[in-house]
Amino acid sequence: MAITVVGSVAFDSVSTPSGSYERQLAGAATYFSLAASYFTDVRVVAVVGEDFTAKDQAVFDVRKIDTRGIEHAQGKSFFWAGSYHDNLNEAKTLQTDLNVFGSFAPKIPDAYQDSQFLFLANIDPVLQKRVRDAMPHVKLVGGDTMNYWINDHRENLLKTLAGVDILLINDTETKLLAENKNPVKAAQDVLGMGPKALVVKHGEYGATAFFGKGIFPGTSDKVHHPFRAPALPLAEVVDPTGAGDSFAGGFFGYIASQVELTPAVFRRAMFYGGVMGSFAVERFGTERMQHLTRDEIESRFALFRELTHLD
Amino acid sequence: MAITVVGSVAFDSVSTPSGSYERQLAGAATYFSLAASYFTDVRVVAVVGEDFTAKDQAVFDVRKIDTRGIEHAQGKSFFWAGSYHDNLNEAKTLQTDLNVFGSFAPKIPDAYQDSQFLFLANIDPVLQKRVRDAMPHVKLVGGDTMNYWINDHRENLLKTLAGVDILLINDTETKLLAENKNPVKAAQDVLGMGPKALVVKHGEYGATAFFGKGIFPGTSDKVHHPFRAPALPLAEVVDPTGAGDSFAGGFFGYIASQVELTPAVFRRAMFYGGVMGSFAVERFGTERMQHLTRDEIESRFALFRELTHLD
Repeated sequence: MAITVVGSVAFDSVSTPSGSYERQLAGAATYFSLAASYFTDVRVVAVVGEDFTAKDQAVFDVRKIDTRGIEHAQGKSFFWAGSYHDNLNEAKTLQTDLNVFGSFAPKIPDAYQDSQFLFLANIDPVLQKRVRDAMPHVKLVGGDTMNYWINDHRENLLKTLAGVDILLINDTETKLLAENKNPVKAAQDVLGMGPKALVVKHGEYGATAFFGKGIFPGTSDKVHHPFRAPALPLAEVVDPTGAGDSFAGGFFGYIASQVELTPAVFRRAMFYGGVMGSFAVERFGTERMQHLTRDEIESRFALFRELTHLD
Repeated sequence: MAITVVGSVAFDSVSTPSGSYERQLAGAATYFSLAASYFTDVRVVAVVGEDFTAKDQAVFDVRKIDTRGIEHAQGKSFFWAGSYHDNLNEAKTLQTDLNVFGSFAPKIPDAYQDSQFLFLANIDPVLQKRVRDAMPHVKLVGGDTMNYWINDHRENLLKTLAGVDILLINDTETKLLAENKNPVKAAQDVLGMGPKALVVKHGEYGATAFFGKGIFPGTSDKVHHPFRAPALPLAEVVDPTGAGDSFAGGFFGYIASQVELTPAVFRRAMFYGGVMGSFAVERFGTERMQHLTRDEIESRFALFRELTHLD
């Protein structure tokens, strides 16, 4: 079943210990939709500028991603420059140019309205809420955010979170959002803000899901214990950019490909999230995410299973 | 089958956000032997001073831990004072008094010589090696160390590591020992120093085991992929002191209780390590480790399994 994703389609300049690149296709919605496209149909809502070329468009077309919701505006696309050096888990932002994203007013094509899944990638929570409100018929809403929105746009973010079913953020963001340093108490606080499930990403250590009531149809009274999915210990991380968005794409894409959201589906989705994140960092930019096979994905899923399974 | 453990039996003064205590029984060998005592027979080699009371002795006696190898010397026992505040994963050392440990010359009681398992808890690697050499018949040797020995006693430590089968250290220690920041490459380097298996502890995120050749009898040519065990997300950590030593005790104790070291036994041992570590931090000092039941341990093991298992 189709996912509509709203978020940035952008260009990045990135430097890592393994090398660097200039103004390559990137953005949360790009990584998310590439990762999710291996599991289900994906439709993108975003805005790009005149620097978005036919070659960039082809990256989406090859993966059969619906881009009718990508608006082409005058000016330049969103641009981000960052570097990873001492700590591969944290980027140092060198430059952020909103460009055409500064005046972005998301428009949802009519053809997207039968999407059962909606993912609100990391953008201004006001825009996230506008898209969420414009798609009242979706069955499940996933979302992401970041420190900047948590710190400086909390009121708007809380309004958005009230309409998000599954929130995916990292450890630091969870503690910041909850204003609580204990990871379990912080997760419980976040679940009180609207989300029925919270996936806390731990970078190289994987991710933990916490569950509130009502996330699994027909089990509203049952308490669901947390679930931990691993990340793969990697001998080389070429470029961490997009790992979180690729995790979200694999996670939400797998859920959208299944008939019903059960605890087992959620757990496998966490593993597929880790799998897609592990591929993303193996090459610069979106390179690895463009040309995967289902066989490669299933082999790595088996490796993740072996990494954690007792029996 | 019996484990002999050599390490510190000490007194700690500790302050955490949950409270504080003064000069309570502690030390790596104490935590280790309490945790291991739920799985197998444990024999301790250590030295204590005149401040070690009948009440302290009773803590070992209740758990049927053999203390004939604990020497009673004139003076005071090893003393450590530390606090945990901003970061529960890292203690700030306020005071270390070696006291009777300063001139410790480990003596192995004859009755310990049929031990098939030996654990070298975190002490001077020269002493670790002396004990290891004095027990040539043991079947499996586990060991621990810390930054201080890695930085300032590397030569001695490398001689000790050549005789250790399973080394348990944390992320920082692994990278420091290997002088390599990548966790996978660092692990491979450490496996080149002698250990046939390396268990890297990640604090609140669990632990990862890396395997070299020859760790599992009869499978010397097979490549064994890493294994990740979780830690339990805890709503309250009262006192992190002894978590690592309790992990080691649960881990090594379970291995010693089994007929043969297989990959499945190793994996379950990692889970039992996490289980004992999670109990240790629930109360101040050794309190929780003194009065567990096998039922409590098995219930928590089931929780760990549920936390990570797909199916």
